[in-house]
Amino acid sequence: MAEPIEFYFDFSSPYGYLAAQRIDEIGERHGREVAWKPFLLGAVFKTTRSEPLLGIPMKGDYARIDLPRVARLMGVPFALPSPFPFMSVAACRAFYWLSDRDPAKAKALAKAIIDASFGEGRDMSGAAAVLETAGSLGVDPGQLGAALQDPAVKDRLRAEVDEGIEKGVCGSPFVLVDGEPFWGHDRLDHVEKWLETGGW
Amino acid sequence: MAEPIEFYFDFSSPYGYLAAQRIDEIGERHGREVAWKPFLLGAVFKTTRSEPLLGIPMKGDYARIDLPRVARLMGVPFALPSPFPFMSVAACRAFYWLSDRDPAKAKALAKAIIDASFGEGRDMSGAAAVLETAGSLGVDPGQLGAALQDPAVKDRLRAEVDEGIEKGVCGSPFVLVDGEPFWGHDRLDHVEKWLETGGW
Repeated sequence: MAEPIEFYFDFSSPYGYLAAQRIDEIGERHGREVAWKPFLLGAVFKTTRSEPLLGIPMKGDYARIDLPRVARLMGVPFALPSPFPFMSVAACRAFYWLSDRDPAKAKALAKAIIDASFGEGRDMSGAAAVLETAGSLGVDPGQLGAALQDPAVKDRLRAEVDEGIEKGVCGSPFVLVDGEPFWGHDRLDHVEKWLETGGW
Repeated sequence: MAEPIEFYFDFSSPYGYLAAQRIDEIGERHGREVAWKPFLLGAVFKTTRSEPLLGIPMKGDYARIDLPRVARLMGVPFALPSPFPFMSVAACRAFYWLSDRDPAKAKALAKAIIDASFGEGRDMSGAAAVLETAGSLGVDPGQLGAALQDPAVKDRLRAEVDEGIEKGVCGSPFVLVDGEPFWGHDRLDHVEKWLETGGW
């Protein structure tokens, strides 16, 4: 059995949202599992001397044109949440805690959070919003609420972020296919071609 | 007659080189002229707080994988010149001087310079390399050599760079179709779709 495709993204990444609409279908078409790996892009920015795209002069203006234009082409809704960018620590911790218990539900939670953020423009930065969304999926809010403050869960997220940086994950979204790196929603077509051909 | 498609690029931009292999064909397929507009990305970096991609930790390593991988997919040669990145002031000035005299030859010169840089890895940063390439296209090296030091030509380049910044050209390559902006070699498919459909 082939290793899962690794799908790294920041919950606060609008291009990550766009990729999240497509990545599982791409995996399915090629008989591959997709392991969702939310991480904190802010930690990467320290190494790459970068900052959130939409706050950058000129580039931010461009992204405000490009993002909804790509979404229209894909036929998916798009809205920027407020605040934006936002801290996604609670969402990440909830994901990894749940993924050790029910991986399918963890992925459903991640999808629900990122869709609420960029499909509906909702503020998903706080623990309350994450707990509510998890609750609607049948997750016990008391247990999850405690987990968000559990040092072991905090360490788990830190380790996942460190592992992403080790693997060269320099932006969001970022996909690894058997170790081959693909950065950006724009690269999903290459991901698909790589899966079809085994590389070129 | 529709306005030309504007194709902004820095001669020192490897993704600009990749786009230069495709942009004229895209224009031709849709009956549109393509106006090549070399500019100096360094001037934009001051506004966007950016720096050359290949020197950035993690992102540079990724680009060293992605660039030759895209080139292989396109079936075009790829090599990084040394020094890299390089100052492309001489190439830009030569282009604009020549474009006022013989636009087709100016485009041929630009194509020859960027192909020498990233197709063959040659150092095209100096005036001598630019003059030699221009000479091989039948341009008088004495006249062009004088033009490279002409204050009016220097001003012309400065004005072109300023105009690009005015138009929001935040990276290289950058294409404008009737004012609609598309940043990145990755966006040429959207450029093509925009030309086909008139927008979405």
